Amino acid sequence: MKIALDAMGGDFAPDCTVKGAELASRELPDDIKIVLVGKEDIIQSKLKEYNITSPSIEIFNADDVIDMGEHPTKALSQKPTASIPVGYGLLKSGAVKAFCSAGNTGAMHVGAMFTIKAIEGIIRPGIAGFIPKESGDFGVIIDVGANADCKPDVLYQFGEMGALYAKHVFNIENPKVGLMNLGEEEQKGTLLTQAAYQLFKISNKFNFVGNIEGRDLFNDKADVVVCDGFTGNVILKMAESFFDLLQKRNIIDPYFDRFNYEAIGGSPILGINGNVVIGHGVSSAEAIKNMILLSVKMAESNIHLKIKQHLGE
Amino acid sequence: MKIALDAMGGDFAPDCTVKGAELASRELPDDIKIVLVGKEDIIQSKLKEYNITSPSIEIFNADDVIDMGEHPTKALSQKPTASIPVGYGLLKSGAVKAFCSAGNTGAMHVGAMFTIKAIEGIIRPGIAGFIPKESGDFGVIIDVGANADCKPDVLYQFGEMGALYAKHVFNIENPKVGLMNLGEEEQKGTLLTQAAYQLFKISNKFNFVGNIEGRDLFNDKADVVVCDGFTGNVILKMAESFFDLLQKRNIIDPYFDRFNYEAIGGSPILGINGNVVIGHGVSSAEAIKNMILLSVKMAESNIHLKIKQHLGE
Repeated sequence: MKIALDAMGGDFAPDCTVKGAELASRELPDDIKIVLVGKEDIIQSKLKEYNITSPSIEIFNADDVIDMGEHPTKALSQKPTASIPVGYGLLKSGAVKAFCSAGNTGAMHVGAMFTIKAIEGIIRPGIAGFIPKESGDFGVIIDVGANADCKPDVLYQFGEMGALYAKHVFNIENPKVGLMNLGEEEQKGTLLTQAAYQLFKISNKFNFVGNIEGRDLFNDKADVVVCDGFTGNVILKMAESFFDLLQKRNIIDPYFDRFNYEAIGGSPILGINGNVVIGHGVSSAEAIKNMILLSVKMAESNIHLKIKQHLGE
Repeated sequence: MKIALDAMGGDFAPDCTVKGAELASRELPDDIKIVLVGKEDIIQSKLKEYNITSPSIEIFNADDVIDMGEHPTKALSQKPTASIPVGYGLLKSGAVKAFCSAGNTGAMHVGAMFTIKAIEGIIRPGIAGFIPKESGDFGVIIDVGANADCKPDVLYQFGEMGALYAKHVFNIENPKVGLMNLGEEEQKGTLLTQAAYQLFKISNKFNFVGNIEGRDLFNDKADVVVCDGFTGNVILKMAESFFDLLQKRNIIDPYFDRFNYEAIGGSPILGINGNVVIGHGVSSAEAIKNMILLSVKMAESNIHLKIKQHLGE
């Protein structure tokens, strides 16, 4: 099985990407190959610089690079030979089973919609983040930024996809799905959450446990937290800032270490015809390693096919 | 000057309220009186039990109590002699300069709208929470739950009121007002935040500094964070849960101690014809003390008149 990594994506690429690929190759079986997508000469020189000779690492040339600040749609149409579109080409052709990048998030998202496309029946794909639970597990939060404004049926599909992701990738049996809200009672919240509640409560597609509040994110009330991408993005960035505040104060605690984005390394786009993981722009080699490992887990579980199959049921 | 406290409001009332009043009386000048509103016989026996004889503490009898779980509108119409409506009566008549309660939040909010009412021109009053800043100050966040769904002009007024509150109660000169969003760029966000941005950026009523993200809540980018009540409620409860997680792990740090709701003690309703502060249901005596001190600061600055005046400008 091959996994493609955008070697040029991320604030510290290509150093962090080649090093991250090497770290991942040590933890993966020999039959899993990591394909570094990017400028071959630069990648070769970096591999040499860091003495990386792993037979699990391959290179696939891409002449161009989409920078972090570029406009996604414009960049994708003007730079067809950049590492992001080339990576998606490999994924679409079946040459690789997953594609991951810590590069331009917008370009990764738009690129997915243009190439492998949304699964038929999925109104809006969503990005799934993770939540470190007090119990020691990780929970899932969807959406964390792909869709700022959502309709109730979009939230419902996030519930379906989030539950499948939690089950097949995080191995949580019958995951509890909670709706992010400002109170526990059914009638609480915005027009959106009130309407979504009515859809969720009659669902036989996932295990809905009711509304959850901001204080419940880290406890065991829900394994999967459903919210619009605006709310999810605020939550994700606020959790990150907590971690940074603790670091600045030299507070070391094994639980809070799991707030570190590096622990998971990336957020998958769910609801598209392929396994795609988006990493943090500031990704370190450790984060890249974990993003690759997550991509492998997604490819092994074939989560995108599980979602497709589920829609047909 | 007199400040009314709902002696019956809060999970631990009346014990926490009489004790909190006594703690506040020690820090306040003699000419500020605290009026305990509630069942006189119960309050008297509690004052006796705790040996409280402060001449700064008075009692105003209210025969009934609105419980924490009661439906606000129904309870207010069925229990006109409960401590919340009686407290509002004192505020409306001018007998007291502020009214605060850790009781039924909905009844406090609806009670304000029924008695002292919204300031003419204010579309929706908002509840202002606080944010502990890394710099050592406190920032303001509005709204934290009164209005789940907001229109752009409602957010604009939150910006105006939040800036006045930060200036006159927290003594922040020319406070920086930020719009909560999922990215820094003008075109980012929901339809709501995009439209609000256009109103904010042409404002000459407050110092708009642009969009801020979840990671900026605790830094110095903005003194006043404007958001809809849904987002603000999630942020507030998430920050609380973060404090609880630290407590559980016995992590003591002076900065994070300021995440404790007790540090400020309550959240004012801004945009109404009077000074009203709502406390946390679980308020301790320390929290009640700080809620009273905040109420005094609001009364001294006459923040509700400042807001009224500002609208006429």
